[in-house]
Amino acid sequence: MAAAEEQQGFRSLDEASLVTYIKATPALAARLGGHLDALTIKEVGDGNLNFVYIVRSDAGSVVVKQALPYIRCVGDSWPMTRERAYFEASALQKHGGLCSDHVPEVYHFDRAMSLIGMRYIEPPHIILRKGLIAGIEYPLLAEHMADYMAKTLFFTSLLYNSTTDHKKGVAQYCENAEMCRLTEQVVFSDPYMAAKYNRCTSPFLDKDAEAVRGDDELKLEIAELKSRFIERAQALVHGDLHTGSIMVTTDSTQVIDPEFAFYGPMGFDIGAFLGNLILAYFSQDGHADQANDRKAYKLWILKTIEDSWNLFHKKFVDLWNKHKDGNGEAYLPPIYNNSELLSLAQKKYMTSLFHDSLGFGAAKMIRRIVGIAHVEDFESIEDASKRASCERRALDCAKSILKGRRRFESIEQVIVHVQSFSQD
Amino acid sequence: MAAAEEQQGFRSLDEASLVTYIKATPALAARLGGHLDALTIKEVGDGNLNFVYIVRSDAGSVVVKQALPYIRCVGDSWPMTRERAYFEASALQKHGGLCSDHVPEVYHFDRAMSLIGMRYIEPPHIILRKGLIAGIEYPLLAEHMADYMAKTLFFTSLLYNSTTDHKKGVAQYCENAEMCRLTEQVVFSDPYMAAKYNRCTSPFLDKDAEAVRGDDELKLEIAELKSRFIERAQALVHGDLHTGSIMVTTDSTQVIDPEFAFYGPMGFDIGAFLGNLILAYFSQDGHADQANDRKAYKLWILKTIEDSWNLFHKKFVDLWNKHKDGNGEAYLPPIYNNSELLSLAQKKYMTSLFHDSLGFGAAKMIRRIVGIAHVEDFESIEDASKRASCERRALDCAKSILKGRRRFESIEQVIVHVQSFSQD
Repeated sequence: MAAAEEQQGFRSLDEASLVTYIKATPALAARLGGHLDALTIKEVGDGNLNFVYIVRSDAGSVVVKQALPYIRCVGDSWPMTRERAYFEASALQKHGGLCSDHVPEVYHFDRAMSLIGMRYIEPPHIILRKGLIAGIEYPLLAEHMADYMAKTLFFTSLLYNSTTDHKKGVAQYCENAEMCRLTEQVVFSDPYMAAKYNRCTSPFLDKDAEAVRGDDELKLEIAELKSRFIERAQALVHGDLHTGSIMVTTDSTQVIDPEFAFYGPMGFDIGAFLGNLILAYFSQDGHADQANDRKAYKLWILKTIEDSWNLFHKKFVDLWNKHKDGNGEAYLPPIYNNSELLSLAQKKYMTSLFHDSLGFGAAKMIRRIVGIAHVEDFESIEDASKRASCERRALDCAKSILKGRRRFESIEQVIVHVQSFSQD
Repeated sequence: MAAAEEQQGFRSLDEASLVTYIKATPALAARLGGHLDALTIKEVGDGNLNFVYIVRSDAGSVVVKQALPYIRCVGDSWPMTRERAYFEASALQKHGGLCSDHVPEVYHFDRAMSLIGMRYIEPPHIILRKGLIAGIEYPLLAEHMADYMAKTLFFTSLLYNSTTDHKKGVAQYCENAEMCRLTEQVVFSDPYMAAKYNRCTSPFLDKDAEAVRGDDELKLEIAELKSRFIERAQALVHGDLHTGSIMVTTDSTQVIDPEFAFYGPMGFDIGAFLGNLILAYFSQDGHADQANDRKAYKLWILKTIEDSWNLFHKKFVDLWNKHKDGNGEAYLPPIYNNSELLSLAQKKYMTSLFHDSLGFGAAKMIRRIVGIAHVEDFESIEDASKRASCERRALDCAKSILKGRRRFESIEQVIVHVQSFSQD
């Protein structure tokens, strides 16, 4: 730990010093019912980005998450600002205030220590990605995620807020530039060039990865999305809304880890979620066995994609209609003063958002196959040849969506298109 | 003056206190050669927004501009933050550093006093709008404005800067939200609704103004542009680049008054300049007399519009090519790694910028005819019927450009289109 950082009041905690910290912090101690003498502590962070401790007493529980001043990637060390904890806490609090059903409560935040104390999302919650690999259906997932996305995006956009408030938020999250740059690099740049940390299921996908790097049409599209990602402050987005940032049971859906949050294009969140569901879809053939051919599960995933968009669309437009006479400055009531015109404006807005979501979703798919960070959906397929086959279908599908996204008029058309890349 | 403001160190100056201020301010005193005992002071502000003093000694000159905490509009008082002086000074300094030939030098800035000391742009410089009304040709205007726009926009965009630096700038200018909101209101909202301060050449244009307020297609387009204006932080734009913000001689072009500066869409500046030239074009018939039918001058204006865009396009792409291996993060060299691909990317970028410019330019035209603030080009046509006839042609032209902007492939096509609305 650098001396300068210690001077700013930061020290990285271990289990012993964590107990001392909790004892000195009423907001955390209270959550444990004040029973602090026999705490059970379990470190569950993946060790790469953050320390994550589950702390339990006989009267309660908390999760304590502390950011470290680096991330570790592919065996190398990569410095990364601890300030991401501040943006994670801020986004959890903002989004939690808008959608408390699907965002864990923050009990305590210590900026100097880069430390968040928050709700322990108890078993049987598991990471959605693991549930998708296991073939578990979540009947409320689409409904819950549509609710989360509609509320967090609508209420942080100009459809609901004044320009003044909007620009305050934009300025605040501009400081999270380092995290944004990481996304720019790993999503919009590295997969399209020969980058040090890129990898793919070699040798099977070597030519596919090379084809991505040589695809001029794809590079023109990704440039447009990259600029939009950086320049367009449409709403406070989660910034990393893949299936590893969602914890689920059949009854509950909890969105975690918004450390990449910033004011960006709404489609980046929607696309991340839908794109990762499509990756899960294409990975299923690699998980099929004699006991379960996964065909029914693939259909459930497709249905979830369809429902997620359609429910999001409905909920978002419902919020718009409900708040059309509020403080939002994008569509003033005296101008958009009849229901036909407002309906046309909404249709135009949602179509543009749909195409954005498809573009960003496809970009997120591509980077998971030929970029630095892969997904367990595919990684857990042991047979490399089989894995490559699944990945190639997903990659080809993503490329075609990225290039042709403006031609899709409904999510149903996208589903048909996705299915056309499946071996079924 | 409110007590709170005085406490913050602000006091509005008059001629006597200005002399005291200059004597106590070395950066200003030096520009007057230290000869401070026989200063000539002339107040030339329009009295609505700011005090502007020209201060001369026998050894030099300065302009001292002080922002007041309000603007006066249509006989009413409208509070307006003095902090606009900070953004004006910041933008003058930033743009001046990028394009010193066309931006007046700032000698001194006093934030508490909202006071800028800057170069006196001496006669025979006049406001371009007045030159256009007088029918004066400025052979270097297109070249100079293309140079100004290319440099200020390119060098403050992601084509030249890292995301980190870009987001710092965005955050800084988010604070200029009050000025942005004023633009949103007067350009993108009020002309499309029944707003208190709207006016038009009545009764001649009453039905035309009403038609604007009832034009659903127009309202859908203006909504898109309004959102882009607020959300898209593409470059540090001047924010008010009409022909009243430009001082000219036949040899010199100086851009002043960037108090609306913020990170916004480049097309807003380019459109403001081109749109105001088109307004000047349509006003010429109202200034024609037996001595001068203005036909040749109208052709010169059209040629200036054509040259401004084409020269801007060339200079901007030249800068891009020159700096393509620099720090700009939008198009990384290892991705856009062959000249054919880079050329395609540039073509796509410039086409989008062209359509943005046409849209914003048309919006700026419309608001000058049916909104609050009109232009002297038309206002100085005494015969209301003749004025209305000129304005109607401009309005109809602007509406058609706003709706059909994406169909134009070159500025020459736009010129032909503009001419088709002329009575010649």
